[in-house]
Amino acid sequence: MAPSHPLSILSIEETNLAREIVLAHHDKEVIDFREIFLQEPTKAELVKYLQLEHSGRLSPTSPRPARLAKCQYDVIGSDRIPSYQESVVDIGSKKRTKHEVIGKEHQAALTLKEFEVLVSVCKADPKFKQAIAELNIPDYYEIVVEPWPYGGLDEEDESRRYFQGLIFAQDTRNNNADSNFYAFPLPLIPVLDIHKKEICRIDKLATGGKNDALTAKTHGEKILEHCTTAEYVPELLPQGVRQDLKTLNVLQPDGPSFKVSDESLVEWQKWRFRVSFNPREGAVIHDVHYDGRSVAYRLSVSEMTVPYADARPPFQRKQAFDFGDGGAGNCANNLSLGCDCLGVIKYFDAVIVDDDGKGKVHPNVICLHEQDEGIGWKHTNWRTGRAVVTRSRVLVVQFIITLANYEYVFAYKFDQSGGIDIETRATGIVSCVNIDPGKTSNYGNVVNPGVLAQNHQHIFAFRIDPAIDGHSNTVITEESHAVPMNPKTNPRGNYYEVRKTPVEKATWADAEPRLNRVFKIVNENIKNPISGNSVGYKLVPPATQLLLADPASVQAQRAQFAQHHVWVTKYKDDELFAGGRFTMQSRKEVDGVADAVARGDNTRDTDVVVWSVFGLTHNPRVEDWPVMPCEIHQVHLRPTDFFTANPSIDVPPSSNKASVEVPKSCCQPAQGKL
Amino acid sequence: MAPSHPLSILSIEETNLAREIVLAHHDKEVIDFREIFLQEPTKAELVKYLQLEHSGRLSPTSPRPARLAKCQYDVIGSDRIPSYQESVVDIGSKKRTKHEVIGKEHQAALTLKEFEVLVSVCKADPKFKQAIAELNIPDYYEIVVEPWPYGGLDEEDESRRYFQGLIFAQDTRNNNADSNFYAFPLPLIPVLDIHKKEICRIDKLATGGKNDALTAKTHGEKILEHCTTAEYVPELLPQGVRQDLKTLNVLQPDGPSFKVSDESLVEWQKWRFRVSFNPREGAVIHDVHYDGRSVAYRLSVSEMTVPYADARPPFQRKQAFDFGDGGAGNCANNLSLGCDCLGVIKYFDAVIVDDDGKGKVHPNVICLHEQDEGIGWKHTNWRTGRAVVTRSRVLVVQFIITLANYEYVFAYKFDQSGGIDIETRATGIVSCVNIDPGKTSNYGNVVNPGVLAQNHQHIFAFRIDPAIDGHSNTVITEESHAVPMNPKTNPRGNYYEVRKTPVEKATWADAEPRLNRVFKIVNENIKNPISGNSVGYKLVPPATQLLLADPASVQAQRAQFAQHHVWVTKYKDDELFAGGRFTMQSRKEVDGVADAVARGDNTRDTDVVVWSVFGLTHNPRVEDWPVMPCEIHQVHLRPTDFFTANPSIDVPPSSNKASVEVPKSCCQPAQGKL
Repeated sequence: MAPSHPLSILSIEETNLAREIVLAHHDKEVIDFREIFLQEPTKAELVKYLQLEHSGRLSPTSPRPARLAKCQYDVIGSDRIPSYQESVVDIGSKKRTKHEVIGKEHQAALTLKEFEVLVSVCKADPKFKQAIAELNIPDYYEIVVEPWPYGGLDEEDESRRYFQGLIFAQDTRNNNADSNFYAFPLPLIPVLDIHKKEICRIDKLATGGKNDALTAKTHGEKILEHCTTAEYVPELLPQGVRQDLKTLNVLQPDGPSFKVSDESLVEWQKWRFRVSFNPREGAVIHDVHYDGRSVAYRLSVSEMTVPYADARPPFQRKQAFDFGDGGAGNCANNLSLGCDCLGVIKYFDAVIVDDDGKGKVHPNVICLHEQDEGIGWKHTNWRTGRAVVTRSRVLVVQFIITLANYEYVFAYKFDQSGGIDIETRATGIVSCVNIDPGKTSNYGNVVNPGVLAQNHQHIFAFRIDPAIDGHSNTVITEESHAVPMNPKTNPRGNYYEVRKTPVEKATWADAEPRLNRVFKIVNENIKNPISGNSVGYKLVPPATQLLLADPASVQAQRAQFAQHHVWVTKYKDDELFAGGRFTMQSRKEVDGVADAVARGDNTRDTDVVVWSVFGLTHNPRVEDWPVMPCEIHQVHLRPTDFFTANPSIDVPPSSNKASVEVPKSCCQPAQGKL
Repeated sequence: MAPSHPLSILSIEETNLAREIVLAHHDKEVIDFREIFLQEPTKAELVKYLQLEHSGRLSPTSPRPARLAKCQYDVIGSDRIPSYQESVVDIGSKKRTKHEVIGKEHQAALTLKEFEVLVSVCKADPKFKQAIAELNIPDYYEIVVEPWPYGGLDEEDESRRYFQGLIFAQDTRNNNADSNFYAFPLPLIPVLDIHKKEICRIDKLATGGKNDALTAKTHGEKILEHCTTAEYVPELLPQGVRQDLKTLNVLQPDGPSFKVSDESLVEWQKWRFRVSFNPREGAVIHDVHYDGRSVAYRLSVSEMTVPYADARPPFQRKQAFDFGDGGAGNCANNLSLGCDCLGVIKYFDAVIVDDDGKGKVHPNVICLHEQDEGIGWKHTNWRTGRAVVTRSRVLVVQFIITLANYEYVFAYKFDQSGGIDIETRATGIVSCVNIDPGKTSNYGNVVNPGVLAQNHQHIFAFRIDPAIDGHSNTVITEESHAVPMNPKTNPRGNYYEVRKTPVEKATWADAEPRLNRVFKIVNENIKNPISGNSVGYKLVPPATQLLLADPASVQAQRAQFAQHHVWVTKYKDDELFAGGRFTMQSRKEVDGVADAVARGDNTRDTDVVVWSVFGLTHNPRVEDWPVMPCEIHQVHLRPTDFFTANPSIDVPPSSNKASVEVPKSCCQPAQGKL
């Protein structure tokens, strides 16, 4: 069997081998595996390999980067308190090449196993049972414990590992495990020490409205009496599903236009890239080329944070880092045919570790398919009447994550014009708490009787590691400025000036649509033969609201990345996470983009990384309930003088034979019906 | 035959009858018809009729608004100088109800007939022939005259009707009438008096680069020698079209989910609205309801302006108003099956007037079809593993216009969640001029040898005439503000404040993404029963750069509307055009949104109109050549507490049977091929 490509994810065999190597180093201890996944090669090593690959000079004897496994695990000591450790092992040489005992000031990302512990500890705990009993809710409700990361620590020097549980009641009378329990929120939050497997305390939640106190009051016996059902599974909808939506099929009779080979290699319409998957970032795109020319080294969703704005403690601790805390790969959905996309679909599996650390398949975590995206380009010559119109076909690499109540759909979209969109769709169920009957709140919107959906933000960071015709790149800020009318340079007042400023040192920058500010990532050493400009791609940063939390707050301190739209840093191996390596319970961002910028590296004509941050201030609507319609945001990467013409000019004009015209007679008044 | 709905476009018969009525009033004069189209009823009259219609109380004896025709025509006087006049005639009573002789300070919109005059006058003119001869270009080039509106007048008190011609050369050697002549720009612009049918002067264009003078120099003999072909029709592409794009069909085996009846009535997925079409605005959407509730009275694309930023006179006069000058309906493409959309498509025809003023069909000017837009909403219950996922189906009303070199695709998109997007795609060929060999310019980008694509902006105005549960509406500005940490209201610093401010008087406002500023159009008299908020829809104005021209420039004076993102005005019959009724050759905007705001009307709890303005600063890329890939912009209208839940919650979960999985084995290294 041919050796795996350096970017192919670890196989089950490799995973198990890595496990054995780790166990051999800890033969006197109990090991609880969290994750085992590919440790990507250093850039220096991988670039050498990729150069051979692209030049066709790769041979079985060519040097290959070692296959490395990153192993994350707890070592359970005699006091039963785990020590979190990380190792890198070389699969080929069967050697451990790196070993780190992580300091108690940091916490590992959560695992779903911990969720199970949290639920079972709560359900068995007498204090918790007592707190529930005091709410005096009818017997037909079953208690649901929704595990959440603890958020930012309120106190310093705290090293215990906490989780919090949001508590809901599920109406068992309709005998359906998918009945929507979020419609019945209960006003308490048990806080667990997950290592000790015990509840430390139970926070009582305020349920008041405008002008009520920030702190909780004692609740009466009617905490759920004003709450009503709000179902989303079709069999529980009182009115059933709508009947007038007719089938729409996407058929590709000749198969897809893409080709997948060598496990991770995708080729489509002059694009060529590799796809990998890891527990933290989910799908990652590597080594992106168009028509043989390098565009990007690595594209990833780096981090996101979701801070809640309810001023009443302990809601300041509702702040998830979905990638650093939860792990987007960890929480990825197993995608289904005909549901998550249409047409001809290629699914990619991942390998994850089972409870005992052994590898197993996590099926269908990524889907790959083509989409029609409407008109690509069109021109009609009005003299001859001839219209030439092409349709835009895009290739979509998609993965979807569920974090408790909420979901995100992430997609990398490649188009035929050399453009790349990185898209997120926010959907799922908005996080909510109980509110007294008849009250409204400054902290959110009442979306169902007794249900307050709290105001919050979602702030995303995409990491763009460009390789525009090579790895020596520069970011140029380009703005369009008004120029006062003057006889010399602007006699009629219609001129505006385009100003370009290279980013010399690592820095942050914000979107400024008033100046049409765009960030061009260029290779200053290679000029476009037509325009004379440096070849490049531009990033159009979405002008969205940034983090609103007070800069001195824990929410803000631990999410420095969320405070500017664009960060430009110099490449450094393993510097992948905008919010830092460890986010669970963090009080501040460590080794995230802010620290990377603070190094003050030169970023001119060197290996730069661009981080694109955008957000969504989500003050919920009633229409976001019970499951919210997708809210879509995109970051656009577009070639700017990278090519010598529109790269899609050779797309064949569209004349789709399968389309059907509704007869004109169908809309005569007399007929009325189709 | 049942009488036409008051919003149905004029039939050919009605058009011809209107023509006869006008001719009868001008029986001693020569009449040159420009347009005849439906004069929509006053709102007071139409609302009365629509109320009857929606309540099911409409009968054959119900009062109906008169069928009115707006007739635009030149009356040719004895001096052969036309007088532009407009009449409104009542088709039913065969009476002229309004007649206006338009003052010489205003100019009618252009007609395509005038383009033909311009081309033939130029081609016959000895001065023009001489100017071309002086350029001394090879014989195999044929001269192409590209008619353009004249732009803003440089001088006051000028009442002649001008056109300008941009001049290109078409290489006849490849014997193809669609060979791209824009690759061979010639540096002169003939200016015509279109009434007198004569060239007034020929402006010589500068072809220099950076640091060269603003004024034209004498050109040598090599004006085209450095220019090269840049074809887009497939048979002329040197490399041919790409061969690896496989067929993608959209099939709707059970037909479309929409129903079209009564000529203009569209019903689809709880939406109900009417579509009309007129020469100026193209497709217009009327009387929009969702599930029986009123959302909007009228949606339209009101105006756009495209000012060019080349400081060298006479380029300040390159400023098109594509709706006011050209007429979007006038310039609408005849859409083709399988080219402009996929699936099952309903086309709507328009009626236009022929050279003699008689009505004729302008076929397929609007298309209506459904699209799949990816995941609509999704939630996975991680406890049970059950995912409920719906797909988002949207209904698209699309029209496409060609103005000389450039095209715009406009679409109104209705989704199942109660959302409406108004979309524009900019495509076509960028406007360009000749530039000397080897030079670059501050005024644009060299996109082909010898071809300078000039920097410009496109600024669009959409007109939203809302009817949120009736016609008494209010616009509320909503912003999210950071709040400094303080013990009383924000103890942990995570709180942010949502501030709402009603717009009391007609005004403009700008997008402010730093504050997440949205504009809610609400009915203050009707509260959402769940949240207690006023029912409404929100407009999220795209934060884009506004007009850059100096405020004192003619470009800016005639495009006041392009200087703010949102305008809120009180409804007034016939006040439809953001840039004013007459834009051709205008030196300032008259009776546009700025004047409407200046009335200072009360806009609280009354019949308001919201105008959404956004732009695209287009500093061309080489990739925009020879035909640019669509650049897409959307304005979103979203229900906010209008409904009592997500309106798409009853969309059946997707389990599309026609989708196909690529076998997993396809991507084993050994196989390599699909």
